Amino acid sequence: MAKRKPKVQRPKALPPRGFRDYFGEDVRARAAMLDKITGVYHAYGFDPLETSAVETVEALGKFLPDVDRPNEGVFAWQDEDESWMALRYDLTAPLARVYAQFRNDLPTPYRRYATGPVWRNEKPGPGRFRQFYQCDADTVGTPTVAADAEICMMLSDALEAAGIAREDYIVRVNNRKVLNGVMEVAGVLDMSDLCKFEAERGIVLRAIDKLDRLGPEGVRALLGAGRKDESGDFTGGANLSDEQAEIIMGFMDARRESGGATCARLRELVQGSEIGLTGVQELETIAELSDTAGYGPARLLIDPSVVRGLGYYTGPVFEAELTFEILDEKGRKRQFGSVAGGGRYDDLVKRFTGQAVPATGVSIGVDRLRAALSMRGEATEGPRGPVIITVMDRDRMADYQAMVAELRNAGIRAEVYLGNPKNFGNQLKYADARNAPVAVIEGGDEHANGVVQLKDLALGKALAANITTNEEWKAQPAQIQIPRTALVSEVRKMLARVDHS
Amino acid sequence: MAKRKPKVQRPKALPPRGFRDYFGEDVRARAAMLDKITGVYHAYGFDPLETSAVETVEALGKFLPDVDRPNEGVFAWQDEDESWMALRYDLTAPLARVYAQFRNDLPTPYRRYATGPVWRNEKPGPGRFRQFYQCDADTVGTPTVAADAEICMMLSDALEAAGIAREDYIVRVNNRKVLNGVMEVAGVLDMSDLCKFEAERGIVLRAIDKLDRLGPEGVRALLGAGRKDESGDFTGGANLSDEQAEIIMGFMDARRESGGATCARLRELVQGSEIGLTGVQELETIAELSDTAGYGPARLLIDPSVVRGLGYYTGPVFEAELTFEILDEKGRKRQFGSVAGGGRYDDLVKRFTGQAVPATGVSIGVDRLRAALSMRGEATEGPRGPVIITVMDRDRMADYQAMVAELRNAGIRAEVYLGNPKNFGNQLKYADARNAPVAVIEGGDEHANGVVQLKDLALGKALAANITTNEEWKAQPAQIQIPRTALVSEVRKMLARVDHS
Repeated sequence: MAKRKPKVQRPKALPPRGFRDYFGEDVRARAAMLDKITGVYHAYGFDPLETSAVETVEALGKFLPDVDRPNEGVFAWQDEDESWMALRYDLTAPLARVYAQFRNDLPTPYRRYATGPVWRNEKPGPGRFRQFYQCDADTVGTPTVAADAEICMMLSDALEAAGIAREDYIVRVNNRKVLNGVMEVAGVLDMSDLCKFEAERGIVLRAIDKLDRLGPEGVRALLGAGRKDESGDFTGGANLSDEQAEIIMGFMDARRESGGATCARLRELVQGSEIGLTGVQELETIAELSDTAGYGPARLLIDPSVVRGLGYYTGPVFEAELTFEILDEKGRKRQFGSVAGGGRYDDLVKRFTGQAVPATGVSIGVDRLRAALSMRGEATEGPRGPVIITVMDRDRMADYQAMVAELRNAGIRAEVYLGNPKNFGNQLKYADARNAPVAVIEGGDEHANGVVQLKDLALGKALAANITTNEEWKAQPAQIQIPRTALVSEVRKMLARVDHS
Repeated sequence: MAKRKPKVQRPKALPPRGFRDYFGEDVRARAAMLDKITGVYHAYGFDPLETSAVETVEALGKFLPDVDRPNEGVFAWQDEDESWMALRYDLTAPLARVYAQFRNDLPTPYRRYATGPVWRNEKPGPGRFRQFYQCDADTVGTPTVAADAEICMMLSDALEAAGIAREDYIVRVNNRKVLNGVMEVAGVLDMSDLCKFEAERGIVLRAIDKLDRLGPEGVRALLGAGRKDESGDFTGGANLSDEQAEIIMGFMDARRESGGATCARLRELVQGSEIGLTGVQELETIAELSDTAGYGPARLLIDPSVVRGLGYYTGPVFEAELTFEILDEKGRKRQFGSVAGGGRYDDLVKRFTGQAVPATGVSIGVDRLRAALSMRGEATEGPRGPVIITVMDRDRMADYQAMVAELRNAGIRAEVYLGNPKNFGNQLKYADARNAPVAVIEGGDEHANGVVQLKDLALGKALAANITTNEEWKAQPAQIQIPRTALVSEVRKMLARVDHS
């Protein structure tokens, strides 16, 4: 047998780069938020679906904008039989696979919602994680633009249900068909040979998507010869002529005060392009339906600068932005930004079946929305911990367990201290770390006399910090002795006082 | 540009082998079950934790029994920087990593629960999936056997909260220390050189774990020269002598009617082994605590045949089995079997920190428990679908949307039909496929007269099947005309009738 090595190589206690963990209240708050959002989806008639986290690489397809990343932005590996499998990068590609697989058993249209983690093989960085949560709703099997309008209005309802105030968000809507029309007018799209200019169109799309970050000048450079960034890195451009670039820039600048005025302006810009005009008409219908339903331009706005990075969109695209200001890493004010996006993807199911299956949907970025809600001053007080039964006499563990069972049977969260009971101070420190409201103490004397001590830890904390001004509270002793038989009722009283303070 | 290929290679609309999807009510029922289980965990003072799905391979360690599988049973791949990452195979190894990483910020003991999918690179087969759900609770940082007893009792409560009847399950408890003691007595364990006989012990462990499946004879063969299975495949044995094998077999046979009697028998078997005696004493304490707390041997049983496959257990191990009978694939009666397991793993955190951090916990196999509940005759009626607003006039979509918004604002799940509205029969077929209780119909005439038709689809179904014997129901027309202004109140009435039928 090998001799013991002189020094053991220990694994690092870290997740892989770009991954993180969620603790306690974060997990509960996210679950509560998702319940509210999926509650809205459910009320709209959507049914839940949960697909596997792993898909075949061919089923996922290559639609991420990360063309120069390993495996084009997905985590992939080979199965024993050499076939490639990968972690899903969104919840839409798996839906397309599921619909294609089960299309004969599913209702048409199929409305489904889904919640879960997705994974992106991105370069990790501060605030950039490689696993994050999405919460999606999609309608598969109908081409009507009423479905897109419904998704946009439902998104609006979902954000408000999650706790975003009406004045704090806007859903912006655009249409890939209008963009295609503009590109056709500019001569970057040839309807008789869609593959022509494909590389150029990809660059144009990604450039427009960066308008927020690079400003008009940066986008203009990318439409032309290319752009050098602050670090000196050069990004190749689409090499459009000045006239072509102007047409594209004009498109991004087409937003007017009302949806109607914007659509009128877009109609001028795509004059002569059939697909462009179809796109404008769809936007008009969305604006009409949402205005009539009371989701006016203050909530749902036609905005030609919205593109969305994913490659599979074919019609309306939308994005929800939170409009309140936050301070960025450098202390500068900026808007919180995008928390949800989606659009119509009529060809995603067709990849599998060969038959056109129109579809549209939205994805809410759950972690970003949670972060936004925290910033908007959600209740920050730590959640209440359990009642702690302290251990004064290690041999009477069964007695302490009887107490904790009584409390739990009465619906009160409670636990016996299971650390080393020797140092009583450590037990109270533990109770403090757990934010426990009450500690129960029963030493040998108490046990002999049929009593227990209840320590009001919330009051103790307040008294120690000298922050209580409530006379009634001050009059209360922080520790009282009660009959053992009154444990449940007295703990309940103490908890009620904590609740009302 | 490349010419279009004559035939397009389409991706297959299938998940990878061994993966599956969950639809509609399955997703909701599982979520409801997990809420009940985590509700019990929470009442016991446990806090939620959600770790990332991906860990470094070194942090996960190699503890699965699948020694001859690729990557020893995990899905693993290399990151850009050549480091290996993998999908977690359980929720315990990630907890050990988290505790090591955050040990200075977490309370001690740290009680946490977690829910989520785990992945195993197993050979897929009927009913064997490579992604499945677990729901765990663990107490980290305390060596007291009271923590193990608490976990076992909490497991019992959790199963009952999920809907398993008290007479339908049993939690069996054993102790690896006792097994080690038996192996020491048998001469397969040398306390002065723990690495000696490691391979033999691994085979013994896996053999005992297969007692259910192979019976005593099969286990006996594996303890000796090895065993040929029905297909003719040969599994190598531990090559123990007859005497050694007898000692191990006697251990598995040590169960008596009461925990006390079993422990007494075990005490005889491990005579002379210090670790074995410590293990027996721990089992005695667990039996004592659980008996006193009312979780007698009918729910919590000391049973030496329990081993658990995972390599990291160091003390008490436990397993919850459902005892009711089901028919297997071949129509034979058998017990449903294991739905949860766990144990003490005192060295898992030490791998990272070098310092001993004792820990114990349990994992419930969520999918198996769901399957068991379905078999036990959970309500099988399909869940109610949304109210469907049919579309008689495609140009009045805004009107239909106004109706659906009214219903939803009144808390009624509802949707507008968004498929092709041309064929009204298809709309009713869709409503049927969704299990919709009510359809709302408003054609041009109705609109002009300020009325709508409500179709009671549940009643319609019952009448069509001629299964209704309820006189009041028969007297009800399946379709009524109501004022448009009474939409919400009349739909509500109709739903109430469906509820009470």
